[in-house]
Amino acid sequence: MKMQVAALRHRPESEDCYLVSQEDMKLRLHTGKDVKAVYVYYGDIYEPLTELKRAEMALAGHGQVNDYWEATVTMPNHRCRYLFEVVGQDGEKVIYGDRGIRKDEQESYDDPSNYIKLPYFHLIDMTKTPDWVKSTVWYQIFPERFANGDKTNDPAGVKPWKPDDKPGRDDYYGGDLQGVLDHLDYLQKLGVNGLYFCPIFKAASNHKYNTTDYLEVDPEFGDKALFAKLVNEAHKRGMKVMLDAVFNHIGDTSLQWQDVVANGEKSRFKDWFHINHFPVEPYDPKDPSYETFAFEKHMPKLNTANPEVVDYLLTIATYWIKEFDIDAWRLDVADEVDHRFWRKFRDAVTAIKPDFYILGESWHASQPWLNGDEFSGTMNYPFTGQIGDHFLKGVQDAKTMTELLTDQLFLYREQTNSAMLNVLDSHDTPRIKTVAKGDEDKALQALAFTFVQTGSPCIYYGTEMGMSGGEDPDCRKPMDWSQDGSPVWQAVHEIIQFRRDHWETLSQAATWLEVTKAGLIHVVRNGHEKIEAWFNTTGKTVSLGTEAALSRGYQGGELANKGYVFELK
Amino acid sequence: MKMQVAALRHRPESEDCYLVSQEDMKLRLHTGKDVKAVYVYYGDIYEPLTELKRAEMALAGHGQVNDYWEATVTMPNHRCRYLFEVVGQDGEKVIYGDRGIRKDEQESYDDPSNYIKLPYFHLIDMTKTPDWVKSTVWYQIFPERFANGDKTNDPAGVKPWKPDDKPGRDDYYGGDLQGVLDHLDYLQKLGVNGLYFCPIFKAASNHKYNTTDYLEVDPEFGDKALFAKLVNEAHKRGMKVMLDAVFNHIGDTSLQWQDVVANGEKSRFKDWFHINHFPVEPYDPKDPSYETFAFEKHMPKLNTANPEVVDYLLTIATYWIKEFDIDAWRLDVADEVDHRFWRKFRDAVTAIKPDFYILGESWHASQPWLNGDEFSGTMNYPFTGQIGDHFLKGVQDAKTMTELLTDQLFLYREQTNSAMLNVLDSHDTPRIKTVAKGDEDKALQALAFTFVQTGSPCIYYGTEMGMSGGEDPDCRKPMDWSQDGSPVWQAVHEIIQFRRDHWETLSQAATWLEVTKAGLIHVVRNGHEKIEAWFNTTGKTVSLGTEAALSRGYQGGELANKGYVFELK
Repeated sequence: MKMQVAALRHRPESEDCYLVSQEDMKLRLHTGKDVKAVYVYYGDIYEPLTELKRAEMALAGHGQVNDYWEATVTMPNHRCRYLFEVVGQDGEKVIYGDRGIRKDEQESYDDPSNYIKLPYFHLIDMTKTPDWVKSTVWYQIFPERFANGDKTNDPAGVKPWKPDDKPGRDDYYGGDLQGVLDHLDYLQKLGVNGLYFCPIFKAASNHKYNTTDYLEVDPEFGDKALFAKLVNEAHKRGMKVMLDAVFNHIGDTSLQWQDVVANGEKSRFKDWFHINHFPVEPYDPKDPSYETFAFEKHMPKLNTANPEVVDYLLTIATYWIKEFDIDAWRLDVADEVDHRFWRKFRDAVTAIKPDFYILGESWHASQPWLNGDEFSGTMNYPFTGQIGDHFLKGVQDAKTMTELLTDQLFLYREQTNSAMLNVLDSHDTPRIKTVAKGDEDKALQALAFTFVQTGSPCIYYGTEMGMSGGEDPDCRKPMDWSQDGSPVWQAVHEIIQFRRDHWETLSQAATWLEVTKAGLIHVVRNGHEKIEAWFNTTGKTVSLGTEAALSRGYQGGELANKGYVFELK
Repeated sequence: MKMQVAALRHRPESEDCYLVSQEDMKLRLHTGKDVKAVYVYYGDIYEPLTELKRAEMALAGHGQVNDYWEATVTMPNHRCRYLFEVVGQDGEKVIYGDRGIRKDEQESYDDPSNYIKLPYFHLIDMTKTPDWVKSTVWYQIFPERFANGDKTNDPAGVKPWKPDDKPGRDDYYGGDLQGVLDHLDYLQKLGVNGLYFCPIFKAASNHKYNTTDYLEVDPEFGDKALFAKLVNEAHKRGMKVMLDAVFNHIGDTSLQWQDVVANGEKSRFKDWFHINHFPVEPYDPKDPSYETFAFEKHMPKLNTANPEVVDYLLTIATYWIKEFDIDAWRLDVADEVDHRFWRKFRDAVTAIKPDFYILGESWHASQPWLNGDEFSGTMNYPFTGQIGDHFLKGVQDAKTMTELLTDQLFLYREQTNSAMLNVLDSHDTPRIKTVAKGDEDKALQALAFTFVQTGSPCIYYGTEMGMSGGEDPDCRKPMDWSQDGSPVWQAVHEIIQFRRDHWETLSQAATWLEVTKAGLIHVVRNGHEKIEAWFNTTGKTVSLGTEAALSRGYQGGELANKGYVFELK
């Protein structure tokens, strides 16, 4: 087979070429699946070409149509030039460099202009993600539905706390921060060590995504003193706290928007928004007077190019860190806010806490936000989407899933991959059990698979109770406290505990994904220790000779369909 | 031929997907050379998929191993999702989206997760380059060698002004700013309208790249009053002024470095540099006590991660704009300074002059610096290198050159391409005539070709006089004033004038490059007007039926080898 030279690809200073320390640079080359070996020639930019070194690159992953090759090179003088020698399966050799693809002949190596450059290794530009995130297992709480710890703050007309209820879009059940505080011991017993809260700020809804005031705790949830206590108690237990910041838009009940409604063009807040024409009401989606999140008239979009808005939002972002010591912000609709804003945001929050975790909501490939100067990671829906398509929905075969997951891993730097939030479900999606059409085995298998991937895994409240629920608002049922300690609970607990015990390898080792001859999905994580895992989605029992550190559906060397085995070496 | 699916490539929010206005987004897809047609399906992220539109993408260029496809889509709601339908030469169809490559079947179109997103069109993130640069023809002046207008400021021991002299590394000839002022009328007559000065700040060398004091004009060149007059006189003539900022390193004669030499670890400037160990002298390149530019001990590298250094350099950057009204900075060794610094630099200078031009020195592919938040453009050595390899050195055939130039054009957004500085030679390279082994026809042909490309072209002082010179310092001979008005001068003048008259098309229209059946290099620029140009490098005369707006070696429908024809339609 003739090599697909048009498939050769390397982008300087990107996820294909990045620092892992002041002296070490990781290099990647993308090729077709028709390459036998890749070598990198590299050296100091200012030393003679005769001093170049040559290193063989390792095959690091099989994608859908690409293979990925990697090498790490060490440059004590902090500068590097390099080019690639690519050897096809048929023995054909080509040189890939800064001036195109050249023949494998001496002149190709002798031309300095053909070398790709990382001109200087700047630590200040290096992508850094917080170490603590890598050992964290998150638990996502939708406060209105987790637990009602204080009946005195219940809104009028709360519905009875029935976990099998069908929540309406505007229903209230009375969950609050006291309810979370009351269950910190429970969460510690479950094994999680990061609390991810959906919005807690004052807003006229049960979900609080239409903020009225970002500097107030919603009175239906409690007050600032209670929130401070909650953070302290979580920290005492070694748990981190993440809040949800909705900076793309504000609620139409906010004083800023109300001023625009009342005063029109004379409002001092008129440049805080994207207004097409006055008056702003009534709102017509066919000829919108103002821009909104999606077509939600209650959520006018903030103009984050306005320095006043930037100041306002950064005041909020830093207030909750300085005053309450939160550890992370999850950023709602983060991909619709401008990059300049997020760079300032990152600078502001990391100036207070250098290891602050910044998590952007984004449902698609997120390279533009993940170059080290904006977010630490994103909600990894594209990654977990591939998992769900295979394990839960059965619409994607095992091989395609391993290939597409591999492609996803090579979109980002390693330090980014280990800081992605791996969510199988959330307040915005159906619950995994429902996606799996009620099949608990499939749900647990998908969860187990997710927990041996790089990235910070997250449990949506109630998953451990085997809760079900369709699209929003059905996925936001009141927590089912009756299943504490059930077999499902126990299985989830074991998966969490395994992750916590082996986080160093699971968050940082390279990932190798493949399908065995027998059809099992095989995950290899070879780092601090070696962890292998197998997952049976073949529809039948498969023999497997391994000693299980943790397993489900594995007995006497036989792995049942929908079962999994983790092995420690 | 089976389509090379591994060659399909599109990077969201990059030169493959960028704003050209608040509502218009340009899309590119890279393919192998085996694709017949590409279509893009696109629509608002929050409208139903049934509302999608479909547009055919245009084949925009043939690269070395890739073809490039383009389309511009308009989104009044400022948000977009899209995917590509790719049709191979053999009729095979595949869908390329956010979740990989899929079959051409309805499900591939129906899955919202498979759409690539530009979630919101932010003008503040859009790449903007100054309009005036697009109509500018630059003239690069090495002040010590252009003209001696004031003998009273000559350094001791200046050599006689002989254009055929062999300059030594440390020789002085006495050129100065008065010499430039005296020749502004000459430069206007030549036709240039941008002056690019090599460093003019106080430094202990003839080239001034080892700055002693960035806030002083070197007394060998003049003083601030004279420089102010020079800028004013240039501006009166419609000429822009660009100075050279050496911010990667400083001279070892600077007070900051001398303080480090004198006081070692106790120096208040010790964190201004990258110091490995004290004392810093003597310097040993094998075990360097401090980092330098290359291995130049007289040029200690500045630590631009230190906020004090950032403040210092930004004070300099803004001082020369605020006090002297300069229009542009050329940034020496710009690729070795950190990205965070350049972002702050851009913010600082554009806050004073929104249309300030920022030109980085970089000798290689420069995507990392050209995303709109750092430089406007770079010195386009990789682009002009391809031109030189064909026209001047004859080491690259015409077809390869057109393909590699096309590849270079697709590395960047259009607004960036039109702000690149296209230099065939400079103070850092041999002169074009010398590269062409003295062949003036080849030199003029290469120049003519460069002037019909997108990007801001630049003449190195003396090119119009037919000057020659090898590697630095030989390329820095005293200006040969005797050739003013010579045939070479006249040819260069005509090329400049043509560019000035037709800048709108030449700087902004799409570029199509190909080799005709007869072997002529054919350039098509189809914008405001239509300009075509042909270049004969075949070694023999070729018949060509066209009416010449400007030509050399073209008579009676016959284009001689080394000749060129420009046609206006």
